[in-house]
Amino acid sequence: MADNHEILLASRPEGAPVAANFEHRECGRPSAGAGEVLLKTLWLSVDPYLRGRMNEGKSYVPPFKVGGPIASGAVAIVVESNNPAFPVGAHVSGMLNWAEWQVHGGEGLTILDPAHGWVKENLSHALGVLGMPGMTAWSGFNIHGKPKEGETIVVSAVTGAVGSLVAQLAKRKGLRVVGVAGGVEKCAYAVEELGCDACVDHRDPELKAKLREACPKGVDIYFENVGGVTLAAVMPLMNPFSRIPLCGMISQYNTTEAPEGPDRSGAMWRAFLVNRITVRGFIVSDHYDRLGDFISEVAPLVASGEIRARQTVSEGLENAPDAFMALLSGGNFGKAVVKIAEA
Amino acid sequence: MADNHEILLASRPEGAPVAANFEHRECGRPSAGAGEVLLKTLWLSVDPYLRGRMNEGKSYVPPFKVGGPIASGAVAIVVESNNPAFPVGAHVSGMLNWAEWQVHGGEGLTILDPAHGWVKENLSHALGVLGMPGMTAWSGFNIHGKPKEGETIVVSAVTGAVGSLVAQLAKRKGLRVVGVAGGVEKCAYAVEELGCDACVDHRDPELKAKLREACPKGVDIYFENVGGVTLAAVMPLMNPFSRIPLCGMISQYNTTEAPEGPDRSGAMWRAFLVNRITVRGFIVSDHYDRLGDFISEVAPLVASGEIRARQTVSEGLENAPDAFMALLSGGNFGKAVVKIAEA
Repeated sequence: MADNHEILLASRPEGAPVAANFEHRECGRPSAGAGEVLLKTLWLSVDPYLRGRMNEGKSYVPPFKVGGPIASGAVAIVVESNNPAFPVGAHVSGMLNWAEWQVHGGEGLTILDPAHGWVKENLSHALGVLGMPGMTAWSGFNIHGKPKEGETIVVSAVTGAVGSLVAQLAKRKGLRVVGVAGGVEKCAYAVEELGCDACVDHRDPELKAKLREACPKGVDIYFENVGGVTLAAVMPLMNPFSRIPLCGMISQYNTTEAPEGPDRSGAMWRAFLVNRITVRGFIVSDHYDRLGDFISEVAPLVASGEIRARQTVSEGLENAPDAFMALLSGGNFGKAVVKIAEA
Repeated sequence: MADNHEILLASRPEGAPVAANFEHRECGRPSAGAGEVLLKTLWLSVDPYLRGRMNEGKSYVPPFKVGGPIASGAVAIVVESNNPAFPVGAHVSGMLNWAEWQVHGGEGLTILDPAHGWVKENLSHALGVLGMPGMTAWSGFNIHGKPKEGETIVVSAVTGAVGSLVAQLAKRKGLRVVGVAGGVEKCAYAVEELGCDACVDHRDPELKAKLREACPKGVDIYFENVGGVTLAAVMPLMNPFSRIPLCGMISQYNTTEAPEGPDRSGAMWRAFLVNRITVRGFIVSDHYDRLGDFISEVAPLVASGEIRARQTVSEGLENAPDAFMALLSGGNFGKAVVKIAEA
């Protein structure tokens, strides 16, 4: 009987990923070599950007290899250690392979220190509101959004891992916050739990008109991580000197070719000009110098419950591909994580 | 016999303007009323942005009215004055109607003071290198381009009123400067007279390959005022953390509908994200607080001949529409101005 399992990239998805793109393999449990630790995976993160890594070609992180491991943010516990920086029993976070057990040299691992408030019950937040998505939200909102009290922000994918923190930070800063989400239930959550002033369903055929109604003073910040119809609906509402921090475009990740015309890029360009819009692509790793500021602001608010951090939890490594595929079509509600083993 | 002439907008152009869109009218010469001056027009400026004002609809300046005057940057001399701020004989610049003579209340007029170096021979530069286009170049390059020595800048419409100053400022700051212009003659001028390290013809079917060759280290700043094929050729070359100051898109001004697909806006969005590009639309009037800095840097360089300021001069008010129509198809070479009367 196998005492370990891993998931490999069997083939590159064309369009939306399917089960056949993933290979679930039984394998042996390794032992820690010199300087290494043996890690037991507790939580895996599934995130939209992983879709890009499944394609061939240049992006801001190198692509996964066909036949090789898939890796993502993860939380693990150290089970064997030949590395004094990571003692047995320590909880760590870092980029790990999709496997139940793995050895690791320690580079890029961070200890989740109980002295900083990490306990068994909140470890998965290291993948969400207090991890990469949270830092993406915080840095995009503050550094590139340049928010001012009384302004209006539109937050796409507002119940997602990034959007939900952007919305709550914006509300705390005194902005009018208008969410965009898929479906009635998510929209209700955005208003009732996240504190949005309004939320519009991106599947609503009246999206444009409803968004206009929800933003009577126009839009000063569009926090963009979806692209597509939401972007098209927001552009005409952008105010002079407005800002678009751009950290994703999930609606386009599964596309295989440029959509049919007309070519809207010229019209978009014109809108940037006429309204003196600043569009700024950014990636969370550009801003890790501000990680301390982020954690010291947000961690206490999560601990006190003032900031909500909803999760969609799948169970078992074998369900990681499904969790990822569901995420790309909006099947999650809050941060999508996969529980691999009990902490 | 009429002692004055004016040009009105007869109808809104559909696509490229034609002669019938302009009405040339004989009219009487007015007299200055209380607080007014009578101005004799010396120079008119024709600029790409005027095309936008001929359309109906919202932009950053209100549209011209059908049957009403066309106005643009102009230089005039005060012939009668009931306004002590503008004595008879003073040269002034400001937004004036396309007319040989007109009365004006004085709001928005600037005196071109001989104490600041203005003489009969250089008055037309108040419409070009030392006026709105020059300030556009200077502010876009410095404020939004954020240039650093050793970087590479691509300047579209490089022999135009704006581009030619951007290129020369960039060269003085130690950047590699690659121009884009229409035709062999303009490209030669860009290299030989403006000091560009290379210049590529946007009509060249090998535009993409040649631009890539001219930018071996990629592109850090794309000074954008044309859109269209030039933009498409530059986008794949943009470096991480590059900047696109965007002040125009002349290639699109005559379009009446969105071009055929595929829709490239998603791909553009992706490029912004992957390379963390900053796109910033701007309009010169946003930066008039820096006018003093601009003039004190650039005016001495123009006076000494260190900065070239080529002009295409048309003669006579009746030729202003032709000068404008030629401008939109690249028929000018340097700043396009119309000489209305001797200074």
